[in-house]
Amino acid sequence: MHAITISEPGGPEALVWGEVSDPVPGEGEVLVDVVASAVNRADILQRQGFYNPPPGASPHPGLECSGRISALGPGVSGWAVGDEVCALLAGGGYAGKVAVPAGQLLPVPAGVSLVHAAALPEVACTVWSNVFQGAQLRPGETLLVHGGSSGIGTMAIQLAKAVGARVAVTAGTQEKLDRCAGLGADILVNYREQDFVAEVGKATDGAGADVILDNMGAKYLDRNIQTLALNGRLAIIGLQGGVKAELNIAALLAKRATISAASLRARPPAEKAAIVTAVREHVWPLVEGGRVQPVIDRELPMSDAPAAHRLVEESTHVGKVLLVTPGAA
Amino acid sequence: MHAITISEPGGPEALVWGEVSDPVPGEGEVLVDVVASAVNRADILQRQGFYNPPPGASPHPGLECSGRISALGPGVSGWAVGDEVCALLAGGGYAGKVAVPAGQLLPVPAGVSLVHAAALPEVACTVWSNVFQGAQLRPGETLLVHGGSSGIGTMAIQLAKAVGARVAVTAGTQEKLDRCAGLGADILVNYREQDFVAEVGKATDGAGADVILDNMGAKYLDRNIQTLALNGRLAIIGLQGGVKAELNIAALLAKRATISAASLRARPPAEKAAIVTAVREHVWPLVEGGRVQPVIDRELPMSDAPAAHRLVEESTHVGKVLLVTPGAA
Repeated sequence: MHAITISEPGGPEALVWGEVSDPVPGEGEVLVDVVASAVNRADILQRQGFYNPPPGASPHPGLECSGRISALGPGVSGWAVGDEVCALLAGGGYAGKVAVPAGQLLPVPAGVSLVHAAALPEVACTVWSNVFQGAQLRPGETLLVHGGSSGIGTMAIQLAKAVGARVAVTAGTQEKLDRCAGLGADILVNYREQDFVAEVGKATDGAGADVILDNMGAKYLDRNIQTLALNGRLAIIGLQGGVKAELNIAALLAKRATISAASLRARPPAEKAAIVTAVREHVWPLVEGGRVQPVIDRELPMSDAPAAHRLVEESTHVGKVLLVTPGAA
Repeated sequence: MHAITISEPGGPEALVWGEVSDPVPGEGEVLVDVVASAVNRADILQRQGFYNPPPGASPHPGLECSGRISALGPGVSGWAVGDEVCALLAGGGYAGKVAVPAGQLLPVPAGVSLVHAAALPEVACTVWSNVFQGAQLRPGETLLVHGGSSGIGTMAIQLAKAVGARVAVTAGTQEKLDRCAGLGADILVNYREQDFVAEVGKATDGAGADVILDNMGAKYLDRNIQTLALNGRLAIIGLQGGVKAELNIAALLAKRATISAASLRARPPAEKAAIVTAVREHVWPLVEGGRVQPVIDRELPMSDAPAAHRLVEESTHVGKVLLVTPGAA
């Protein structure tokens, strides 16, 4: 098959579309003929040499895909060759074929095309596991999403609105904020011009955000805690603003607040399967009912992965950038 | 009535046993004739002027008591004059009488004396709300308790063992560690001589502690995170080791870990009532069955509150130091 390989860590040009050997599905795995994958920031870190695949994962990048099952490994039930699926991957999505544990498969939701379904697994699983399972966002509460126009952000806005929460977002341009508003965001903060602590405070009569979904890490830690409401929960899923920061524990204690940090990729297959099951139960009906939609910036041929990475690094996109396998759709 | 008053912030001698006006139970409150109260570290901070009572609370120290109901305010049902109770207080326990929201009352558990019942509310509510409701300690998991011989520590050891968890403790002397072992602690760390990160690591085959109950704050933050297991939860309930520390968010993320910080006193009455209800349901049966016992260092007359504070500040005690109302028991 063809796949994107990373000969050595570097810029987007390090991504090379070439011939590699096919993966073989192991016990409990299926082989998926990939129709599309999508770019995640973790792929960029992997390309740069900062985020090695977990043990046993494919060396090729790609944390999600859509496609058709072409073979079943031993011990798989409930799925058949020919099924159209999307999947959460530990790697290997930028390829013609990928082997994936059956517990990480999802059916393509009714009303979503097979290509577009590749935009869903990472964002749905990340938002559900962090905002709903971890931070327990409840109807009537306020969620602050940093990077509201990202793939994660656009899913978080839609899911939070669907369960009856109020949503605040930060983004760097008015155009991105307009897109967030179109998805239902109630409170719009341009982080280049406004202070999110003050803006969220004003919009909530001083109460603050009950849950914050954060991709900035160190840079926002103190301001995130200032923005939290009493009993607030800060869920950190990215470290784009650095790794280490001073924590004021007294401020945390005064708010009876919680900080959690997690990534999806490193979770063992059993935890991923539990998240996928919950997503199928709670998120898929919202997608099929039209309340929650994949937000796609554009589709590029998989061989153009370098261009797709450049796009995401420039951060002018809204939603997901898809990589489509040549001839597969 | 008599009560301990704090004329001005200072050392133990600032605590003066004198005549004050009786409290009047408001809507939803009962008046309790206090038989005993107990010393908490928060009382020492309050005496020193660092921890003012929350709005509406009694100015006198004392966060828990036992005694007999002597009057019902408007709108109280389910309790009667003469009932023997213990109670979680926002303050005012070092006194002959205290007014308390009915939701913060607990019956005296069968098998526990009325005086000894004063040792239970703070530790049972603190441990249940932080270790079980917040951090969700589960059977088979490992709990690390810092200050294992404190009132909180002795309750945490017993409750965790009762639900089938493994318990590690830190303490500063072999005598204290022996007492912790007697209560069921499995892993004993003398923090003056040993490194708890290394010792808990060794005792858990490198897995670490699933939950840590911490009273040290800043001083232990980094080492606590090093000690956490995958999916670990750090619950901070005290800041005896300072307020601010550098947080390595990448280390937190690699473990998919959670940090929470909370105090009981500042919670609104509705949250306290919910915790008290859960304690009555989950902890009281263990006390009545003999699995969990109040651990009492000694009983002093309430007028000797200065001596009781000196004792707790010297930290040679194990369990709770009680203050008994003269002539009331």
